Amino acid sequence: MNPIVMEKTNQANEILQEKGLDLWLIFVRETSAGGDPILPLIYGDTDLTWQSALLFSASGEKIAIVGQFEVETARNTGAFDKVIPYDESIQPMLMQELDRLNPQSIGVDMSQNDVLADGLSHGMYLNLMMILEGTPYAGRIISAEKVIAALRGRKTKTEIQRIKTAVSSTMEIYQQAFHQLKTDMTEMEVGEMMQAMVEARCLDFAWPKNSNPAVNTGPDSPIGHNAPTHLKIQPGHLLHFDFGVKQEDYCADIQRMVYFLKSGESKPPPSVQKGFKTVVEAIMAAFNAIKPGKTGIEVDSAARSVVINAGFPEYKYATGHQLGRLAHDGGGILGPSWDRYGKTPFLPIEVGQVYTLEPGLMVEGYGYVGIEEDIVISEHGAEFLTAPQTELFII
Amino acid sequence: MNPIVMEKTNQANEILQEKGLDLWLIFVRETSAGGDPILPLIYGDTDLTWQSALLFSASGEKIAIVGQFEVETARNTGAFDKVIPYDESIQPMLMQELDRLNPQSIGVDMSQNDVLADGLSHGMYLNLMMILEGTPYAGRIISAEKVIAALRGRKTKTEIQRIKTAVSSTMEIYQQAFHQLKTDMTEMEVGEMMQAMVEARCLDFAWPKNSNPAVNTGPDSPIGHNAPTHLKIQPGHLLHFDFGVKQEDYCADIQRMVYFLKSGESKPPPSVQKGFKTVVEAIMAAFNAIKPGKTGIEVDSAARSVVINAGFPEYKYATGHQLGRLAHDGGGILGPSWDRYGKTPFLPIEVGQVYTLEPGLMVEGYGYVGIEEDIVISEHGAEFLTAPQTELFII
Repeated sequence: MNPIVMEKTNQANEILQEKGLDLWLIFVRETSAGGDPILPLIYGDTDLTWQSALLFSASGEKIAIVGQFEVETARNTGAFDKVIPYDESIQPMLMQELDRLNPQSIGVDMSQNDVLADGLSHGMYLNLMMILEGTPYAGRIISAEKVIAALRGRKTKTEIQRIKTAVSSTMEIYQQAFHQLKTDMTEMEVGEMMQAMVEARCLDFAWPKNSNPAVNTGPDSPIGHNAPTHLKIQPGHLLHFDFGVKQEDYCADIQRMVYFLKSGESKPPPSVQKGFKTVVEAIMAAFNAIKPGKTGIEVDSAARSVVINAGFPEYKYATGHQLGRLAHDGGGILGPSWDRYGKTPFLPIEVGQVYTLEPGLMVEGYGYVGIEEDIVISEHGAEFLTAPQTELFII
Repeated sequence: MNPIVMEKTNQANEILQEKGLDLWLIFVRETSAGGDPILPLIYGDTDLTWQSALLFSASGEKIAIVGQFEVETARNTGAFDKVIPYDESIQPMLMQELDRLNPQSIGVDMSQNDVLADGLSHGMYLNLMMILEGTPYAGRIISAEKVIAALRGRKTKTEIQRIKTAVSSTMEIYQQAFHQLKTDMTEMEVGEMMQAMVEARCLDFAWPKNSNPAVNTGPDSPIGHNAPTHLKIQPGHLLHFDFGVKQEDYCADIQRMVYFLKSGESKPPPSVQKGFKTVVEAIMAAFNAIKPGKTGIEVDSAARSVVINAGFPEYKYATGHQLGRLAHDGGGILGPSWDRYGKTPFLPIEVGQVYTLEPGLMVEGYGYVGIEEDIVISEHGAEFLTAPQTELFII
């Protein structure tokens, strides 16, 4: 039995009750081709082949209607009280359960805004509507996006443990890499060295390999989701990393900073020190501001104002995002009220959510300073998932 | 540059012309959450974040409309003649290209039948319809399923090379495992031993690990997509495997047979020999029947009649399926005209398609005999991707 599936399916019934949704209906087929992004959380790593329906009710029921050859697999998840097989068509069994439960609202995985709540393909939507045609249930279909955001956001014990493991592997690789860095290496050489370390451990990448790690040396390196370039590390460069592994399906996402002393320097110059200190302080301001019930915009503002008040230009992205099975795990973010973030900065911070904190700024003539820490929300605040960077690594 | 993306996007324009579809429009967002199953073939392993449109025309154009931060990544695919960035909304750029091309038919990735051609989520379908509302293009939207089936089916040189690599690793693990088999091992122990070999090589599984390998010993083992059981290998057992690794994103899917001699036996008993020989002959009958232009039902019938004529019960599944990035790669199958296969046994066999051949039968008192070979269609017939099994492995 997959502990995460057990934990998440129990959470699902609670969240349905809390959100006032009578029934959540996940409708899929041949999930080996991809399928709904919610499935790994509520069904596990195995496939559903024929048209299949997973039903969770606010009254606490968990039902799987699956092709006859997959009954054993569905039972083996341990997550469903009732596994209903079918042979020819799913329609009679699905209608029977709907008639018995008579839900007034039926949430399905469709969303114009949240990709993680939009796992129902258009073809399957049409198939579902054909099944429900002429029944009262067709008119009761709504989006399950609120349920999905809460379910993905509130990490269980096992999920947090897995994220910690990914964070810990990420930090080990950082340590190993930092001791092999030297001037004249190109960004690409540094990136390939770290990727080889990931692969030697049989780990996956938390986001695509072409920009994982991102490596930026000195003032001329383009910042963003770019691949490392042929730029060479020089004395007097700030070297910035954005890197994370995926391990047992969960991600880490951490930025770290190195400074290369110029000949004659025994410590970084004052502007570099000020830039680094400002980012550390911005992270601590966000960390001290965050707790359950606050909203992302408040936390973003705490970090952002530190950077602005220190005289640096405002960073053009959110202070943090959620982290989980995906490096950008959806739901609420720690961001400003900019149009492109929609409602996501106004969603409440909840116990068990995992966020990144990642303010950044440019130090003229030396390069970009960005640090990114991963934190989990606790009852009265938050905890770092690994020791935060508070000193520049000096080479 | 990803060679497969280069090869497949070139194929796409040709197939559009052949199928008489003016434009193929792939419409996605935040593909790190999963996204359309066609993307790895036409965009590669990297993500698209904001709403993005990939356009392929029958006239030979390849256009990507992507968020401004992803222009470089889209260009780096090497596959698009034109990469159009946008900042606020994709609508003006998409409308500009549609007005310029004025396609009379626009294929999108929606299909009630084929999951691999159904990569457009319902939420994104609604978003697309909002963009096209009030324009003539809204009424020209059709399913791109024929284009997608042809594109996935006709493997390129690089794709066939990768499948061969996966097949070769699968065979190496079979060889390694066969030399460690002994009586009294349970199916589970055998399965776990092979899984450890896959993981030691940092390979992936072609289908979920819980039934990969499938291991069936003797006459009492349940056949199907089941997990290995606690049944122990005994003298006089047929031992059946269904196993495949995924390597560089491409799959192998191969069944192999072992027989455990009873005390006093120097070779398998006549009924086991007959069962094994019948399956080998059924595979050769299918192999000799298959060539471009034939249909799956003809090939299925060639293999099926060998099993029936030898006096064994008819197997209750198709003789073969396509193989590629997925173990069941969609499109036409080598199957009978049973309802549940719909039109798929009637689709033409084409050069470059990769199929499995996997007839099977039960030998009473000894166990299941199933052999599965992987083949690629050539101009005048087919080729095996590894040496077929023609002798029982005897222990």
